[in-house]
Amino acid sequence: MLSLVIAEAALETVPKSIAKHPSVVKQASKIGKPAGEILLDRSYHHGAMLKLKDAWKRGRPDLVHFALLEATSTPLYHKNMLKVYVHTTANKAIFLNENVRLPKSYFRFEGLMEELFKNRKVRSNSDLLIELKDMEFCDLINKLTPTKVIGLSRTGAKSSAEEVAKMVNSDTAIVVGGFPRGHFSNNVSSKINYTYSISDLALEAHVVIARILYECEKILV
Amino acid sequence: MLSLVIAEAALETVPKSIAKHPSVVKQASKIGKPAGEILLDRSYHHGAMLKLKDAWKRGRPDLVHFALLEATSTPLYHKNMLKVYVHTTANKAIFLNENVRLPKSYFRFEGLMEELFKNRKVRSNSDLLIELKDMEFCDLINKLTPTKVIGLSRTGAKSSAEEVAKMVNSDTAIVVGGFPRGHFSNNVSSKINYTYSISDLALEAHVVIARILYECEKILV
Repeated sequence: MLSLVIAEAALETVPKSIAKHPSVVKQASKIGKPAGEILLDRSYHHGAMLKLKDAWKRGRPDLVHFALLEATSTPLYHKNMLKVYVHTTANKAIFLNENVRLPKSYFRFEGLMEELFKNRKVRSNSDLLIELKDMEFCDLINKLTPTKVIGLSRTGAKSSAEEVAKMVNSDTAIVVGGFPRGHFSNNVSSKINYTYSISDLALEAHVVIARILYECEKILV
Repeated sequence: MLSLVIAEAALETVPKSIAKHPSVVKQASKIGKPAGEILLDRSYHHGAMLKLKDAWKRGRPDLVHFALLEATSTPLYHKNMLKVYVHTTANKAIFLNENVRLPKSYFRFEGLMEELFKNRKVRSNSDLLIELKDMEFCDLINKLTPTKVIGLSRTGAKSSAEEVAKMVNSDTAIVVGGFPRGHFSNNVSSKINYTYSISDLALEAHVVIARILYECEKILV
């Protein structure tokens, strides 16, 4: 099946090293959860994040929320013609089951992700909806066994969503960055067979996802 | 200029009639604002909203946030080739100035909208960024003086985003519903010249906006 992987996603819980920073303690107490169980979020933890490695690429669960909603709002996803995965900067892979309806309210999404990071599974009654596993990016890609892996990045060869979609078949994995700026790390780009840029302008991850999935839908549906 | 109007948007502050409901009082006190100054939000005020007229169409600021971000993340908007307006169920028109960068964090968007509803203007230094006016939908459309008004709705004639974009010129107003379900009210549809449906499936407002603006960009840029 066609796969979309949101790679190096800026989605994680607060790392231990900054769990005692006042901005983290304050927000954790407001939410009523232990500091290590809340999502790292630049909107609240900007000061605390200054100490983190690669901080500029992290702590943007809002971006990942948009990217996921964009993907899961498409007819391709509703028709079970698309699998959606998130791979995070901290090497967690998130598996969405078929027909998962993610909350549009950020507050509910935040709670859902916190539950996922804590329990590693989210269930509705007995159905498994979302699962989190410790996994390197390369192992996730190997598990999907795609016939080709296409990355979308400004560093890629100039193309258009329309042209890239013509290369896609039902076993392709499309990789889009789930971070606020910068490019794919070597870990990610070494698993990508073809990298394309679909715009002269820097596009947000959710815009790239909307366009490529829409063009794929024109061809695959 | 090409205009996008997000019509009957489910964005408003808590109406007086339910301002004393426990769910409203609780959330207002958590945020530290008077109940009448916080956004009506089904995620928090579901119980209180049962008493409201047309409740099913209201209290979804998250949808409006997505729709606005989708529109303002496009190259058309960045290149000043698109004006974006919101018209709310309570007859408020919201005017975004050029190059306004809306916050992606919902928590910041919420604060911005609460400021807008309270002060009717949002400024950055001396620049006016966003303005709110009391205005009927028909008066907003008259003010835009479009050569044609195209509505996108499942009730419209079957078409595609590609075909609709071919009808668009730089003086067209495109109208998309900013509500969770249902169709345009008579007030809105009476100002629309052509109504089209661009998918067999019900698409979220943000998906409709992503697709139509992308197809318009192919033609206009």
